[in-house]
Amino acid sequence: MQDYVVKNLLQVQDITETVMSAQGFSEAQAAAIARNVTAAERDECRHHGLFRVAFYINTLRAGQASGTCMPELSDLASSVLRVDGKYGFSPLPLEIGHKALADRAREHGIAALSVNNAHNVAALWPEVERLAEEGLCALAFVAAAPYVAPAGGNRPLFGTNPMAFSWPRPGGLPPVVFDQASSASARGEIQIRLRDGKSLPDGWAIDVHGQPTNDPQEALQGAQLPFGGVKGSSIAMMVELLAGPLLGDLLSFEAGEKDKAKTGAPCGGELIICMDPAHFVPGKDREAQLRHSERLFRKILDQEGTRLPSSRRYEARRRTENEGVRIPKVLYDNLMLLREGGYTTERQTYEGDHIAS
Amino acid sequence: MQDYVVKNLLQVQDITETVMSAQGFSEAQAAAIARNVTAAERDECRHHGLFRVAFYINTLRAGQASGTCMPELSDLASSVLRVDGKYGFSPLPLEIGHKALADRAREHGIAALSVNNAHNVAALWPEVERLAEEGLCALAFVAAAPYVAPAGGNRPLFGTNPMAFSWPRPGGLPPVVFDQASSASARGEIQIRLRDGKSLPDGWAIDVHGQPTNDPQEALQGAQLPFGGVKGSSIAMMVELLAGPLLGDLLSFEAGEKDKAKTGAPCGGELIICMDPAHFVPGKDREAQLRHSERLFRKILDQEGTRLPSSRRYEARRRTENEGVRIPKVLYDNLMLLREGGYTTERQTYEGDHIAS
Repeated sequence: MQDYVVKNLLQVQDITETVMSAQGFSEAQAAAIARNVTAAERDECRHHGLFRVAFYINTLRAGQASGTCMPELSDLASSVLRVDGKYGFSPLPLEIGHKALADRAREHGIAALSVNNAHNVAALWPEVERLAEEGLCALAFVAAAPYVAPAGGNRPLFGTNPMAFSWPRPGGLPPVVFDQASSASARGEIQIRLRDGKSLPDGWAIDVHGQPTNDPQEALQGAQLPFGGVKGSSIAMMVELLAGPLLGDLLSFEAGEKDKAKTGAPCGGELIICMDPAHFVPGKDREAQLRHSERLFRKILDQEGTRLPSSRRYEARRRTENEGVRIPKVLYDNLMLLREGGYTTERQTYEGDHIAS
Repeated sequence: MQDYVVKNLLQVQDITETVMSAQGFSEAQAAAIARNVTAAERDECRHHGLFRVAFYINTLRAGQASGTCMPELSDLASSVLRVDGKYGFSPLPLEIGHKALADRAREHGIAALSVNNAHNVAALWPEVERLAEEGLCALAFVAAAPYVAPAGGNRPLFGTNPMAFSWPRPGGLPPVVFDQASSASARGEIQIRLRDGKSLPDGWAIDVHGQPTNDPQEALQGAQLPFGGVKGSSIAMMVELLAGPLLGDLLSFEAGEKDKAKTGAPCGGELIICMDPAHFVPGKDREAQLRHSERLFRKILDQEGTRLPSSRRYEARRRTENEGVRIPKVLYDNLMLLREGGYTTERQTYEGDHIAS
């Protein structure tokens, strides 16, 4: 067992923001990244939490990203908005596009936001969850570093390419949200098994010869597999097209080629589609729509052994809001070093790392 | 081996149309259904081909659907259209909404079409393929009869809930399209294994007690499983929400309750989202976007063992355009009976039935 430091959410936000500032990020960039990191810690999605701070800083120090640019919002069509991330990170451009996207969805019924030229290492769900908290329904797609072989293939091409979805709930209930990679597992889950000397389940990966492997090291050198075979591979391909060519931005393999310093923080596009449910029914009675979807959720939960997507995150949220965030001491010490303007290239892994779904 | 009758595509269209007319469908309904059936036969998606004609007629004869209604197009918002199917079948309302949807996407960048109160037993891909043939990108979602248990659950709730996607290609190449159920297998694949005395692969189904089964009979009495576990289950849930409550239309389990005659032709909603790629890039250079996506397709096909989604359909299309459609004699004889205004309730199965992906 290692030691932990316990901090509340305001402190986590403050630590992240001051670390980012000390490392050369502008106030706006630092605050937006810190909000994403803090949301992830709050919901115990630790791979997008404080653990991720080093990824942002490594990418900046490698000279591949800007920490001070100001993203720019523009119109591409009456229902399509674009935020040029200007080679910074995705949280700030998403925040800048958020209100405009929600407004366009409320005006036209459906609208889309293209975020371009942004390094994507943040959790994807916070943006779709935020839209659903405002009564909207959203879909999000982002490409990633090329780690996944297409179905039937033998080498990496697709990113782990997450797709996220959110749907609002009535009565102050938090939205139903999922945010899932189109790979069978997160890359971090393979790295954790490597560290812990554990083997991989069948269906996660192939080795450099394209043969199925249960060995984490061989998997990391070979390729991850899509979830659900051909169907997951189709979804991974769709995400490539929607986050890449549709937006005039990079495919995962192109982002991989561009990431010369191998920071693992690919630069590219992100597509958010947002719908206002009220505009999809003649009477615009959103409350009736939400009562209707509750019927489905009750029917799901009536079956023992099921849960709603995101329910684990919300349980964690209640826990951390009361009990604070447990930060591994070695991670905390590194953050304190970074906050002094220091830096170490040593790769940190921390007991208790996990990826929440 | 059974006998076959070979007909060309014009003849398939004509047979279907005249059968439908003889059975009480209006000219417009008959022609639209026949176009969907003929497209499915052309591409050897036989479960949506002539085999399906009996489903349309059974549903009409059960008094659950209209064969003569005229669907009505209306505006719900500047980027959201609705076609009320008036309890007929989906092909005609989709055709009626098609041009308006494409026009709105070209005007606003992104637009949506809600098809309501339509019996959905048609193939989903023809509509998204048609949009992509016009240079657009489309997503489609439709709920279905309740056959699939949510992940972790033990009884049917979700439909097989297909999701379809299309992306245009340059130089006259047919679009890349996928149309995939969110269940591990099509229901028809289980029925075919039952008929042939074959067992099911692991992961397809559970029995009435919620236990995994490889027995087709137990599977049909129990529940099918989502593809890819929790992730496929999330997608099935998303399709329920997008085709049901979002559109003010039925969830799969509600459609199942309403299908008193157990025709297997559920009535409900269908959502199509359509985007004009040119509106998603500053220079509106669609050709550059399509050249870019070709880079991805080449990289996929560079890997031995891969194929693009829909490639098997296009191979079949080339074949049937030259060689015609092989119709099992017993199916053909039944169609001739129906064309004389006759009817049999005997369930037909035909050697060679299969579901193409």
